[in-house]
Amino acid sequence: MTHTLILLRHGQSDWNEKNLFTGWVDVPLTGLGRQEATNAGRLIADAGLLPDIQFTSVLKRAIHTANAAMAAADRDWIPVERSWRLNERHYGALQGKDKAQTLAEFGEEQFMTWRRSFDVPPPPIADDSEFSQAHDPRYAGLGDDLPRTECLKDVIERMLPYWRSDIIPALGAGKRVLVTAHGNSLRALVKHLDGISDDEIAGLNIPTGIPLVYELGDDFMPAAPSRYLDPEAAAAGAAAVAAQGKK
Amino acid sequence: MTHTLILLRHGQSDWNEKNLFTGWVDVPLTGLGRQEATNAGRLIADAGLLPDIQFTSVLKRAIHTANAAMAAADRDWIPVERSWRLNERHYGALQGKDKAQTLAEFGEEQFMTWRRSFDVPPPPIADDSEFSQAHDPRYAGLGDDLPRTECLKDVIERMLPYWRSDIIPALGAGKRVLVTAHGNSLRALVKHLDGISDDEIAGLNIPTGIPLVYELGDDFMPAAPSRYLDPEAAAAGAAAVAAQGKK
Repeated sequence: MTHTLILLRHGQSDWNEKNLFTGWVDVPLTGLGRQEATNAGRLIADAGLLPDIQFTSVLKRAIHTANAAMAAADRDWIPVERSWRLNERHYGALQGKDKAQTLAEFGEEQFMTWRRSFDVPPPPIADDSEFSQAHDPRYAGLGDDLPRTECLKDVIERMLPYWRSDIIPALGAGKRVLVTAHGNSLRALVKHLDGISDDEIAGLNIPTGIPLVYELGDDFMPAAPSRYLDPEAAAAGAAAVAAQGKK
Repeated sequence: MTHTLILLRHGQSDWNEKNLFTGWVDVPLTGLGRQEATNAGRLIADAGLLPDIQFTSVLKRAIHTANAAMAAADRDWIPVERSWRLNERHYGALQGKDKAQTLAEFGEEQFMTWRRSFDVPPPPIADDSEFSQAHDPRYAGLGDDLPRTECLKDVIERMLPYWRSDIIPALGAGKRVLVTAHGNSLRALVKHLDGISDDEIAGLNIPTGIPLVYELGDDFMPAAPSRYLDPEAAAAGAAAVAAQGKK
């Protein structure tokens, strides 16, 4: 028996559109982002893969994507669990900065290191920054776990415990699971599932709004290669993500 | 220390607008219903009563109301639990029927008995009716608990166990609780909290989209009279509910 896991990256947000580093800043979807979410829900329904339970981050661009997708699939009623452990990578002091401007100011090498290095985080954000989450009530219980910046390695280290404690048990109970999250929290999970090396993960881009389906074995690792529900759109979307910051 | 409970009846649905008995049929909100939900979220935020956790039925008109209200209050991220025990009263064979037509066909006495009697349910719905929930996957685990019709007494009997098992513990943990549900599941809860008699509950109407706030004592019963966050709109809304079916 296999377990079905569906990964969904949220649709376009206000700050994707404005080309700003977002991270943990809680920005809403654009109209296009909501359309992507609705389309994702239709793809899931058309594939006959209606989920039994869903997981989201605590950021509204993922929550609204999940809500719109499940509304389109007529599946609003399934249980939902949320965790900060599914949040986007914390972009530290880059949060709120323009990507093209950061590229011009610091040069391509430093820019790509911050964006894509496995274990080099950007400088930490100051707690009094308007883009800090130090005083956000949703993270009040985190204490020292609250990140001020993260590299992908950090994301893996705070995401995988949740995968094991909450998502795997749902899969193990025979439920089809939808995880709606972010570029980097999903890259972290895909790296784990597909055994991608620290070096190779830099080249992996996950497109927005295209469901990515895994069939997992009893060890909750892939029993077959994963597949996007709209492979052509996924390829185009991944190329667009790779080009970000270069416009 | 008191515990804050906020009750919210979903906004106008497609079938409210069409004047049909809805019950467990899963119809969406109208545009007006979504506006009511957004307004409710603003009232909650303006009153400084942001909830820490929310509960909904498994019907989309309540789920979408809760989602829109929490989006308006910038509180999308709070945990949410759903239960069929918060569903609207099951209207039995009346589900899908026009209220005015039912009134004309059966007369005011029978009509008011079905709508308002405490312990007389309408005739049960047939499992092969298009408006039955006998084959709906969200209720697959209910077995003999799945209702085919309900009176208000039945609603109380399936709602109060959930109040005790799930909502009271959240209140007891110090959380401010939002319950977004339906005219009759909320009447059932208000009857319990305010100690309203079986006879008097027939005269109690809960308006759509106006948050109703309770401060509860350590026994999880009211420490003070409840209050609507917009009392004038609430009075007008309750009068409109009372007049339903008479147009």
